[in-house]
Amino acid sequence: MQAKLAELKTRLLEASDLNHANALLSWDQSTYMPPGGAAARGRQMALLSRLAHERATDPAIGRLLDALQPYAESLPHDSDDAALIRVARRSYERAVKVPAAFVAELTSHQAASYQVWTEARPLNDFKKVQPHLERMLDLSRRYAEFFAPYDHIADPLIDEADYGMKAATVVAVFADLRRELVPIVRAITAQPPADDSCLRQRFPEAAQWEFGLAVARQVGYDFERGRLDKTHHPFTTEFSVGDVRITTRVDEHNVGDALFSTVHEAGHAMYEQGVRPDFDGTPLGGGTSAGVHESQSRLWENIVGRSRGFWQFYYPQLQAAFPGQLSNVPLETFYRAINKVQPSLIRTDADEVTYNLHVMLRFDLELALLEGRLAVKDLPDAWRARYEADLGIVPPDDRDGVLQDVHWYGGIVGGVFQGYTLGNIMSGQFYAAALEAHPDIPAELAQGRFDTLLGWLRENIYQHGSKFTAAELVQRVTGGPLTIEPYMRYLRAKYGELYTL
Amino acid sequence: MQAKLAELKTRLLEASDLNHANALLSWDQSTYMPPGGAAARGRQMALLSRLAHERATDPAIGRLLDALQPYAESLPHDSDDAALIRVARRSYERAVKVPAAFVAELTSHQAASYQVWTEARPLNDFKKVQPHLERMLDLSRRYAEFFAPYDHIADPLIDEADYGMKAATVVAVFADLRRELVPIVRAITAQPPADDSCLRQRFPEAAQWEFGLAVARQVGYDFERGRLDKTHHPFTTEFSVGDVRITTRVDEHNVGDALFSTVHEAGHAMYEQGVRPDFDGTPLGGGTSAGVHESQSRLWENIVGRSRGFWQFYYPQLQAAFPGQLSNVPLETFYRAINKVQPSLIRTDADEVTYNLHVMLRFDLELALLEGRLAVKDLPDAWRARYEADLGIVPPDDRDGVLQDVHWYGGIVGGVFQGYTLGNIMSGQFYAAALEAHPDIPAELAQGRFDTLLGWLRENIYQHGSKFTAAELVQRVTGGPLTIEPYMRYLRAKYGELYTL
Repeated sequence: MQAKLAELKTRLLEASDLNHANALLSWDQSTYMPPGGAAARGRQMALLSRLAHERATDPAIGRLLDALQPYAESLPHDSDDAALIRVARRSYERAVKVPAAFVAELTSHQAASYQVWTEARPLNDFKKVQPHLERMLDLSRRYAEFFAPYDHIADPLIDEADYGMKAATVVAVFADLRRELVPIVRAITAQPPADDSCLRQRFPEAAQWEFGLAVARQVGYDFERGRLDKTHHPFTTEFSVGDVRITTRVDEHNVGDALFSTVHEAGHAMYEQGVRPDFDGTPLGGGTSAGVHESQSRLWENIVGRSRGFWQFYYPQLQAAFPGQLSNVPLETFYRAINKVQPSLIRTDADEVTYNLHVMLRFDLELALLEGRLAVKDLPDAWRARYEADLGIVPPDDRDGVLQDVHWYGGIVGGVFQGYTLGNIMSGQFYAAALEAHPDIPAELAQGRFDTLLGWLRENIYQHGSKFTAAELVQRVTGGPLTIEPYMRYLRAKYGELYTL
Repeated sequence: MQAKLAELKTRLLEASDLNHANALLSWDQSTYMPPGGAAARGRQMALLSRLAHERATDPAIGRLLDALQPYAESLPHDSDDAALIRVARRSYERAVKVPAAFVAELTSHQAASYQVWTEARPLNDFKKVQPHLERMLDLSRRYAEFFAPYDHIADPLIDEADYGMKAATVVAVFADLRRELVPIVRAITAQPPADDSCLRQRFPEAAQWEFGLAVARQVGYDFERGRLDKTHHPFTTEFSVGDVRITTRVDEHNVGDALFSTVHEAGHAMYEQGVRPDFDGTPLGGGTSAGVHESQSRLWENIVGRSRGFWQFYYPQLQAAFPGQLSNVPLETFYRAINKVQPSLIRTDADEVTYNLHVMLRFDLELALLEGRLAVKDLPDAWRARYEADLGIVPPDDRDGVLQDVHWYGGIVGGVFQGYTLGNIMSGQFYAAALEAHPDIPAELAQGRFDTLLGWLRENIYQHGSKFTAAELVQRVTGGPLTIEPYMRYLRAKYGELYTL
């Protein structure tokens, strides 16, 4: 059995190494590759993808998994070997259900559609990309069909990012959350908006960069096993547990942009850096779901990074870095500015309170598209109607409306948005559990000390990688299932103090 | 036939893409990888090497080459298809002669020996690395044996880097060259040394970097298809004809170090950037031999970059970049400083005249080791004796003696040094041919115009990639075989004017 397990690990390590090598080609494409490198790079990445997929779907893996099944069943559910075999089987069974020819067709359409989207968005031209989105929707449905039978056509797509989650559950949780959030947004928007002009002065790039580096290091992102580079869109990528890199962008006219996106990505990266080293290159390496990953980026960005305590510690340093801009701005003004709630058009720029409304309306539109209740040609109108209904504002154009997110155009329709809000919900649950174990954490944050919180997250979440599903992790950490209560308590306490609720 | 040729190209493209992807992993390792990434990176690179080797030695390639042989023979020697099949066959036959198990053994010993060398050199401890070098010598001989019969055991090793060249030819050419060079070195060293103190002031890194970037761009290195980064040892690497990158290092106490190494690497890179785009990813992509490659790096670094004309144009700009250091230093002083001839210990720091003596003594020692005339344990003494005999100086330690070059410790013993001097010899031949076609080139260099020279090199050398062997290229370009005469004429003219010869 140990020989078979070792062979399984060796085979899976090859697939993992090919995927991680490919991740470096992709990172380089976004950071340092000169324009002339694009054509060959695309071809090289497609090759590595194909080789990794061939290895991941090799029938030899299926045979090893079958042979190992009795051994796995003889072990406790939470033994490492049982978890490895379980997660490997899940990935293998998923991968072999999708024919290689379909994978190639989808990948090729994604690249073409992405390219058209990059041209259509600045031109505000939804019609240009509409046929590509129609084909993407068709491909997304065909993709889901490989996993029939299902309760809802979105289930296989959701399952891929957030294993074990179903559309019906997400719909119910999101309905609860919307019911709680909408009155809060109404109450806040009835009040005069916070003044955030202090954030929108000119903040030179070099000083922003240095400040962001220092904060990332101090919260616990390990630069011996990572680095920070500049890209158009911030992201986190991993080549091994010893090399987890983050990227950010800098807007000289918005001091919050680089800083909060750096802390957000550092949250993702600290999760990956915290996985048990012996899981590296196995199916247990890496975070367990999109939602749990987002819970960590949002926890560090918002619950920590936009807290009053955090800025009691960091604001004097920020003032020292930008004395001309901030020396006359009181901490309280700055704190209110970075937590200003205001319905807006762009999801990624949204505040903590309205953010989930952006996500939930996308999720609902995805379901309507997949169910056939909504045609792609009617999507821009449906988008505008939902923004008006949920946020009280109407996008003046499609560029900042239905064309704003790449997900549907360059990825797939379905399963790509729920993780953001599931992550917010879980961030509230996890943070509450951390506070219960260590009530001093808020006081420590106000002293620039992050080790108790990070240590607790490592111990309870990060180290486990993909060993436990999101639902198992929530149960282990909080003693109960997914629930919006801690997250709502957090929002109500924070924004009840900032606004009159 | 066309279908078979297309299949051959497809198969070879996969091997090429894997090697180019691996080159990016290696580039990243030298430039941006955090320390924590090393272990997994080594494993990932070994995997890509193995997969590329499997593809390059796939018997299907042998069958395709056999089937295509009559077609190749029906074509003129210099047709593209004939050349592609010829070069592919050469690489295939070479690759299949070496068992995969031996490749793995060699690669693994190279990594281990390299590691020991990095520790032994700063400790000045030859004994520490001696057993590793003994094993490397043994492996090098075994490697050569796979290609038996041969005239000289070094031939297969030389052939790998400089196809078609044999030890006997190199020995004869080098004997001629040494006979010419030694009296010149003696005559120069009898005179007072040039004063190069102007180069050894403090030159801040940022300004050196900017100057080097500007020069690389102006000589013709295309930054749309490349970039310059910082590494410990300068190198050029290629991921496709559209992405050929160079690296350099900066010494704040030597203004020549970064500049000349940048121009040197730009020479290598312009060669690669100039290969016909339709050769990219085929066996004809990339430079044809180590010697021809070095001819281009040395031509740009020395014949162009250390010429009086070049500095008539650039020196005012260098003075403007470093006014405190250079405004009182006349051009002639600077020109003499960058062309100071002085026997020294370190090959890579040597001047144009003594440089080849460093190379030739290494080549001779390699032959003696391979032939069994010299034992590894006696190598340090043999090294010192040759430095004393050829250059009139004795290394005070092994660190700056026999331990200075990585080649034997991390690469292989044999075939790794001759290319440097073959390159110098060819640089003289090629430049003389360019001058014959375009006598205005020196005047153009003095105006900062490089397009005529670069255009001639592209037309006559670069575009052909590996289509012609070094010997064929020399014949086509100069109308004759390899000869030291043009190179010696160049050296005598230049140094006869700088010194009294």
